[in-house]
Amino acid sequence: MIIVLKPNITRKDESAVLKEIRKLGYKPHVMRGGERTVIGAIGDERTHQTLETLTSWPQVESVMPVQKRYKLIRREAHKANSTIDVRGNLIGGRKFHVMAGPCSVESETQLMSTANAVKEAGATVLRGGAFKPRTSPYEFQGLGEKGLKMLARARRETGLAIITELLSEAHVQMVAEYADILQIGARNAQNFQLLIAAAKTGKPVLLKRGLSMKIEEWLLAGEYVLSNNNCSLMFCERGIRTFETYTRNTLDLATIPIIKKESHCPIVIDPSQGVGRADLVVAMCKGAVAMGADALLIEVHPNPAEAWSDGAQQLTLDGFKTLMNELKPFIAAAGRE
Amino acid sequence: MIIVLKPNITRKDESAVLKEIRKLGYKPHVMRGGERTVIGAIGDERTHQTLETLTSWPQVESVMPVQKRYKLIRREAHKANSTIDVRGNLIGGRKFHVMAGPCSVESETQLMSTANAVKEAGATVLRGGAFKPRTSPYEFQGLGEKGLKMLARARRETGLAIITELLSEAHVQMVAEYADILQIGARNAQNFQLLIAAAKTGKPVLLKRGLSMKIEEWLLAGEYVLSNNNCSLMFCERGIRTFETYTRNTLDLATIPIIKKESHCPIVIDPSQGVGRADLVVAMCKGAVAMGADALLIEVHPNPAEAWSDGAQQLTLDGFKTLMNELKPFIAAAGRE
Amino acid sequence: MIIVLKPNITRKDESAVLKEIRKLGYKPHVMRGGERTVIGAIGDERTHQTLETLTSWPQVESVMPVQKRYKLIRREAHKANSTIDVRGNLIGGRKFHVMAGPCSVESETQLMSTANAVKEAGATVLRGGAFKPRTSPYEFQGLGEKGLKMLARARRETGLAIITELLSEAHVQMVAEYADILQIGARNAQNFQLLIAAAKTGKPVLLKRGLSMKIEEWLLAGEYVLSNNNCSLMFCERGIRTFETYTRNTLDLATIPIIKKESHCPIVIDPSQGVGRADLVVAMCKGAVAMGADALLIEVHPNPAEAWSDGAQQLTLDGFKTLMNELKPFIAAAGRE
Amino acid sequence: MIIVLKPNITRKDESAVLKEIRKLGYKPHVMRGGERTVIGAIGDERTHQTLETLTSWPQVESVMPVQKRYKLIRREAHKANSTIDVRGNLIGGRKFHVMAGPCSVESETQLMSTANAVKEAGATVLRGGAFKPRTSPYEFQGLGEKGLKMLARARRETGLAIITELLSEAHVQMVAEYADILQIGARNAQNFQLLIAAAKTGKPVLLKRGLSMKIEEWLLAGEYVLSNNNCSLMFCERGIRTFETYTRNTLDLATIPIIKKESHCPIVIDPSQGVGRADLVVAMCKGAVAMGADALLIEVHPNPAEAWSDGAQQLTLDGFKTLMNELKPFIAAAGRE
Repeated sequence: MIIVLKPNITRKDESAVLKEIRKLGYKPHVMRGGERTVIGAIGDERTHQTLETLTSWPQVESVMPVQKRYKLIRREAHKANSTIDVRGNLIGGRKFHVMAGPCSVESETQLMSTANAVKEAGATVLRGGAFKPRTSPYEFQGLGEKGLKMLARARRETGLAIITELLSEAHVQMVAEYADILQIGARNAQNFQLLIAAAKTGKPVLLKRGLSMKIEEWLLAGEYVLSNNNCSLMFCERGIRTFETYTRNTLDLATIPIIKKESHCPIVIDPSQGVGRADLVVAMCKGAVAMGADALLIEVHPNPAEAWSDGAQQLTLDGFKTLMNELKPFIAAAGRE
Repeated sequence: MIIVLKPNITRKDESAVLKEIRKLGYKPHVMRGGERTVIGAIGDERTHQTLETLTSWPQVESVMPVQKRYKLIRREAHKANSTIDVRGNLIGGRKFHVMAGPCSVESETQLMSTANAVKEAGATVLRGGAFKPRTSPYEFQGLGEKGLKMLARARRETGLAIITELLSEAHVQMVAEYADILQIGARNAQNFQLLIAAAKTGKPVLLKRGLSMKIEEWLLAGEYVLSNNNCSLMFCERGIRTFETYTRNTLDLATIPIIKKESHCPIVIDPSQGVGRADLVVAMCKGAVAMGADALLIEVHPNPAEAWSDGAQQLTLDGFKTLMNELKPFIAAAGRE
Repeated sequence: MIIVLKPNITRKDESAVLKEIRKLGYKPHVMRGGERTVIGAIGDERTHQTLETLTSWPQVESVMPVQKRYKLIRREAHKANSTIDVRGNLIGGRKFHVMAGPCSVESETQLMSTANAVKEAGATVLRGGAFKPRTSPYEFQGLGEKGLKMLARARRETGLAIITELLSEAHVQMVAEYADILQIGARNAQNFQLLIAAAKTGKPVLLKRGLSMKIEEWLLAGEYVLSNNNCSLMFCERGIRTFETYTRNTLDLATIPIIKKESHCPIVIDPSQGVGRADLVVAMCKGAVAMGADALLIEVHPNPAEAWSDGAQQLTLDGFKTLMNELKPFIAAAGRE
Repeated sequence: MIIVLKPNITRKDESAVLKEIRKLGYKPHVMRGGERTVIGAIGDERTHQTLETLTSWPQVESVMPVQKRYKLIRREAHKANSTIDVRGNLIGGRKFHVMAGPCSVESETQLMSTANAVKEAGATVLRGGAFKPRTSPYEFQGLGEKGLKMLARARRETGLAIITELLSEAHVQMVAEYADILQIGARNAQNFQLLIAAAKTGKPVLLKRGLSMKIEEWLLAGEYVLSNNNCSLMFCERGIRTFETYTRNTLDLATIPIIKKESHCPIVIDPSQGVGRADLVVAMCKGAVAMGADALLIEVHPNPAEAWSDGAQQLTLDGFKTLMNELKPFIAAAGRE
């Protein structure tokens, strides 16, 4: 930690700060500049108590951490890229993956027609929400376990792995029984009890970025998964909330090189939530592939205009097929398969 | 709903839209302008399916809702201000209330000295976290039930009501047994399963605004509480996340007149989380009182520099006493007691 | 400056950094922690070259400034509050001031009826735009010099001082001839050439905060005025741009105590731009007064529904009179006249 | 425009609104729903007065525009992509362009070594700031005309076209004399007088997006250029300001398909300002190319650690060469040359 004192502090006030720093377990190191004094406090910022509370002292101007707060997730902890085995598919490896399917599971017909179409176009994982977090209590909340059973049937018939959202601690066992990947949604990205419960199932976890989550907070939320003995973590960027209203969210593609630099976990991009408009999805996918994403998570629906949720952002089955063809040269240019 | 068509659409394309509007349960109303056609779709936007999915159609430029999506919470549903009885204190009535106490419950000594001091200075509710949602898994997570027991003892000895955070569905029964008000934190503001579980206890619920929650979304999250048969809901503004880094968050005091206008529920202001710096808390409190807030939620600690969480934003016991004195003329000017 | 090195850097790489720090005019001070090395670089960060460029070196993790970059504007440079004399009215002193008038000057009738009404209700400064920065080139751009002449006439007849916006270097002489205060709008808050030109007229300058301007940047923009030999600077908060769309902007009232703490200049609040809705203006004004603002800048129009710009946020003449009455107890509670 | 009335409005109040709508030049069209009445006002929203002022009426709940406010810039006005001829290079055509060079022109040596290196690596335009908008008045403000002369010399010796920033109306003639493209910076993106002055020179204009500029506002700022008889306009995305602090700005790559969809102008991406960190620039460039950008604007410096401005984000000469090689497969995959 770096503690910056206010200008013209007396030696007595300075001593009081030094004493407190030692009391909290750090070794202080004083640097006197022309105008103000700066103290470096040496010690492990993660195991000792935080010194940030010193900002409540009148003689202290600011306190700045120098250490990264995450441990297991960071690149230094695991030099190679982590890969996650999902029914034989390695996510984070040389092969590029596409997870696709409807926003919500609505019916057997809707799900099976989508599953067959995305499988044929090249997807390896089927997405579909059985429990839906909805802004209003009057909106469709998902089919629940009935939806999970439909997903299981789609897996049996197509061989696709299943990703579906977990949004309640009370459903952990049930959802883990059906899903191959547990998705933690943006609204629950800092629901730490849910993250711990998901981690303990041992299933791969896909952690979406919260609407206004800083990258450091996202990495630390991921640390909740790894520190609960589950290394199968993927990050998923799905757009952050900004002042722009043209798109539903602002898809922050810079997270691709950043997650690769700071951590060893795979990074997945969700362009459907990211922009919220089907007509922009194709371009976002091309960018994500070129920038080194490990996988895409894409909403596809046989008839978006009649979807029970988020119709505006879902591709048609034909639109998805075209997309997959258009991505091929970019996947090759990115050195992936 | 208003459906705006793209310029120069054929009558055939227009007819297809009209047909779909009728199919989804609305009555269409066509307005032809010089350049483009606009369709008003008449029907209850909350009970029929959404027409927003029409934006996935190529002939549609945009779809705009005209109806508010919340029902029970809105001012029209209950003309008078709702008041909430918390151990004989009416929140939302003529009397202005202050809820104060430490960020986290740390020990009997810390809690009792704070409880006695805030009681003496005029607070009516004691705050204190027993379960803490922390950004990092390596930070202090709260004393758990041991902390709740300390809060209960403080209530017995001082007569103060207790507010404490609920952050897991698994703790609902336990926390409801000890608390007079269940606090739902900013990170869980759209954890709808937790909101439903809290509502079902019948205890008063204080719902903090999420870090990047639009006012409409906040009202709809409150609707989850009321629609689960719990009318004892308070909203609590605690700052939103913006680009500004001087303060921890940007405290959006405009929410005071807005919540009063849109809903009948009390509005509480949390300046400690809102700005994250004790030296700015006094001014924010004065503003909140003048603008018509019903209560304040303030962090107070006997020794902020050694607090186990959020020391920078906690007032000292003396600081709190001074604040309460300085607020008096503003409470009077606002016509409150 | 504090330079944080990456973990496990060789002594040779460290030496290269130390050499560069000395070359750029600073004295380095090395602190070796368990995991990484931190270097304090002592020197005046404002006169030496910046060390932030060191972040381009592979062995450097981050560089953090410790010094504030503003000089003349800061509280330490002038312990007392600065006051600004505007035709005999001292802004920033014990007396609270209200600046009011239409968004745009539209006609003699509109301006004179407003001027007389706001004068009678207690305003001391008349606002009115003669040059308008409009988002679209097809919107009303202001009456130009004709509008300035109307403002001058209103001053002669009512004795009110005049504030009007300057938006082009080409108009500096003309606008300065008519205005008592030059207003720099949010969109030009970092148009430094305009700030310098305004400063050089010697007239008082009111500097609005840019839509996404950090407080430090705002203070530094103000420093452009003071460092060009003009001490008559007022800051004006008018709302920042956030994700919230209920209000036009998010009025950041925390700027009141912050500007008072960091600088010696008066702070003015513009609630009309801040929320963009007349029905919320009264509450915002009460908050601003209670929090210690020195003045308000309020849009008032005889017939808002027919205003040529920003009708939604302008008060009627009656509405303004009511507001002035409702503010009285808060002005008294704040210890102002 | 769509005018939504509040629930339970009397017929008299409704009539008053209808009368005002007619008075302002629109034809009203009433739609009565179960709960509230909605009025469609037919007329050209750009030539008539705005109806948004109606929101100041007590019986009106909201007013929503249905028409796009830009005319000349929009795709419908010019179906083909516009191309801009810059010394024989067509920007916006099939060939992909790279504009590269130092943030600031510092010296002949610095500029010429950079110019030669970027030319050799494949750039066609040389960037370099002679007038610099700096947050603090104490920072390096650029070499002024001396810097422009150096740019002109670099053009003579390398054949590269020149892009440089215009930041004052007072410099328009001077800068236009030396530059092939006038750059309008983010801080001046809504300095409309500067935009008009730039347009009138007839030189190509590159308009950066403001830090918190909505896409609609950006298009309208561009409309200021086209409506002043200058069709040679390029948009340049350079990152918006959000809550994220890991990167300097959040580079919004979704602007690439959006500008292509809404307008006929070329879109250029500036990854250097966009992320502010050289180590992320390569990935951002790949994404921009894949998504269909027409050109890149990249900061390159012979020795970033000693740059006089923005060292952290400038590539080395070698780094730029590597980048250009790595981009080749993506340029090919995007169907460009």
